[in-house]
Amino acid sequence: MRELNVDLGERSYPIYIGEGLINEAASYFQKHGIGKKSPLLIITDSNVAPRHLPQLEESLRNGGYRAVSAVVPAGESSKSLAMLGDLVGEALDAGLDRKSVIVALGGGVVGDLAGFVAASYMRGIKFVQIPTTILAHDSSVGGKVAVNHPKAKNIIGAFHQPEFVLYDLGTLQTLPPRDVSSGLAEVVKHGLIRDAAFVDWCEQNADKLRALDADSLGYALYKGCGVKASVVSQDEKELGLRAILNLGHTIGHALEAVAGYNELQHGEAISIGMVGAARLGVRCGAPQDVYTTTKRVLAKCGLPVSLPKHYDVDAIMAAMMHDKKFSEGTMVFIVPTAIGSVEIRSDVSVEWVREIVEELKLEAEQK
Amino acid sequence: MRELNVDLGERSYPIYIGEGLINEAASYFQKHGIGKKSPLLIITDSNVAPRHLPQLEESLRNGGYRAVSAVVPAGESSKSLAMLGDLVGEALDAGLDRKSVIVALGGGVVGDLAGFVAASYMRGIKFVQIPTTILAHDSSVGGKVAVNHPKAKNIIGAFHQPEFVLYDLGTLQTLPPRDVSSGLAEVVKHGLIRDAAFVDWCEQNADKLRALDADSLGYALYKGCGVKASVVSQDEKELGLRAILNLGHTIGHALEAVAGYNELQHGEAISIGMVGAARLGVRCGAPQDVYTTTKRVLAKCGLPVSLPKHYDVDAIMAAMMHDKKFSEGTMVFIVPTAIGSVEIRSDVSVEWVREIVEELKLEAEQK
Repeated sequence: MRELNVDLGERSYPIYIGEGLINEAASYFQKHGIGKKSPLLIITDSNVAPRHLPQLEESLRNGGYRAVSAVVPAGESSKSLAMLGDLVGEALDAGLDRKSVIVALGGGVVGDLAGFVAASYMRGIKFVQIPTTILAHDSSVGGKVAVNHPKAKNIIGAFHQPEFVLYDLGTLQTLPPRDVSSGLAEVVKHGLIRDAAFVDWCEQNADKLRALDADSLGYALYKGCGVKASVVSQDEKELGLRAILNLGHTIGHALEAVAGYNELQHGEAISIGMVGAARLGVRCGAPQDVYTTTKRVLAKCGLPVSLPKHYDVDAIMAAMMHDKKFSEGTMVFIVPTAIGSVEIRSDVSVEWVREIVEELKLEAEQK
Repeated sequence: MRELNVDLGERSYPIYIGEGLINEAASYFQKHGIGKKSPLLIITDSNVAPRHLPQLEESLRNGGYRAVSAVVPAGESSKSLAMLGDLVGEALDAGLDRKSVIVALGGGVVGDLAGFVAASYMRGIKFVQIPTTILAHDSSVGGKVAVNHPKAKNIIGAFHQPEFVLYDLGTLQTLPPRDVSSGLAEVVKHGLIRDAAFVDWCEQNADKLRALDADSLGYALYKGCGVKASVVSQDEKELGLRAILNLGHTIGHALEAVAGYNELQHGEAISIGMVGAARLGVRCGAPQDVYTTTKRVLAKCGLPVSLPKHYDVDAIMAAMMHDKKFSEGTMVFIVPTAIGSVEIRSDVSVEWVREIVEELKLEAEQK
């Protein structure tokens, strides 16, 4: 079992990574001082519930906890204000009080949604994350929780740190290959931001990771969470540095918005976005290998590295103008300077970005 | 001009109370370092907009600020998730970014709603409160912001402190008498909690207050905000002490819920609730004058002090069980021990509360 601390002063919390942790869930709840008088609400989705919910419910019940479960439809469309309202209704019906805890069992969507329920129910109660995807290693660190608005992703939310994160590697064994690759996109991103040696390790071990080798996965998650934790602990509220975690996300979010949040998985969208950012990096003076290595590692992880041809460049640009990574009208972009290093630039012209998006599309057409 | 500081460490902020402050709004924005590049969003309601919005817009425009306005229907029903979604849509359309500021121009409903928009838009941007009711002196201190759920009031929200509060006494001159009385309920509440001399002052000056004498109003708001600020600065997140501010609110919220949020004004509901709490106090051993004085002062302020007969006791009790002032199933109640002093009791039986509610109703029938 690996353990990692996210250092945020009085809001610090640990991430436990290991096999079979869900079976010991109750002991972790107890260890963290969560009382048994108030009911817990487990929020999960229709994909995860049949696989892991009975196991978690049983584990908590055996430990003396009362837990009610709410199952939302799988997919980004559950991250809505309407769903927030439904879940608050369920929390009220179940009698959740200020000492109750919300448990997020699932991937990033469930974590973001359940986290925002916890952040806003009675103006904030505790929550615990039990991620069941590789992608969720990213959202499980740093406390960014949110729902979507029809006009913009993650626009309604909060910073709300979990009490702890329980990463049971066993839950990853049932992930479909596409979800595995999508999750690896954020793992690679963390390397690209801060750790060239880890990018190299990812390339060497991509096949093992895709084959769900537990030890490799545990190491990748530990390293990925570690980079994120280190960045977040330096800038919890995203006032500056934390923006580097958005590498690939400015283009990525626009792609997701244009695709209606469902056609492209998050990791796939940011993979394309990271290739775009690497192209931009080279244009800004970074060595050519920033682009070639980024593209090669992501491709080895089974990720798309160019823009599907049917995407409309105008629509992507329009979606980007709605994205929240803009400050006072200036376009802020995370640009790689080398493998393992990025900088926050606020002088990137919209024209350059447009050309990059066109090149990403051209690349696909030439294939 | 009176100035009061709400002491919350790095989230401290001032409340400015005086006549004609809206005309100088821009200079206060400037004084607080609010930039002019990003647009502001003024949120107000259909009652307040015709009276004070043009004046505020002009003042900000003359000071070089770009402000967009959103007018919601007056009334508690605007405090909904649906309205939150609409306002976030307007914020996006207006191009609000992380440096933008939400301005709440109106009473408690607008403050709560606009405050929660500010707390959750892009995970939190700044906001400024410009209260236009007496009642709002309460909600403008302490950063509690929220919207309602069909099943419970204020159940979805956050703690989000404003940058500053601008209390223009001029806006109070157009308040209808019923709103004046409703506002005085919270003023008196602050006295009942902490300041017997101020309760006495309220009784002596009730007529002047109801006649909207500016100097008396300024003093009452200064004192009321002062009590609240002192309590809040000792317990920002309502972990303990802050609960005393809920005097009269357990019964009051239940009455509002049963009345569908519209029949009774908030101040009227908590006035009845405070008389109920005073009765409970006497039953718990407080001197009889706690009840008689509470009732007399509130009546002098033009407030109801008994329960309208058509209210159903069962429905009120059911609504109370949904209220959030319960902890681990135990009923928590704020009980007066003397005028100017209350205690938090967690041993109040549901039966006693039911009897008190019945007595409040009986009192009305005997009139």
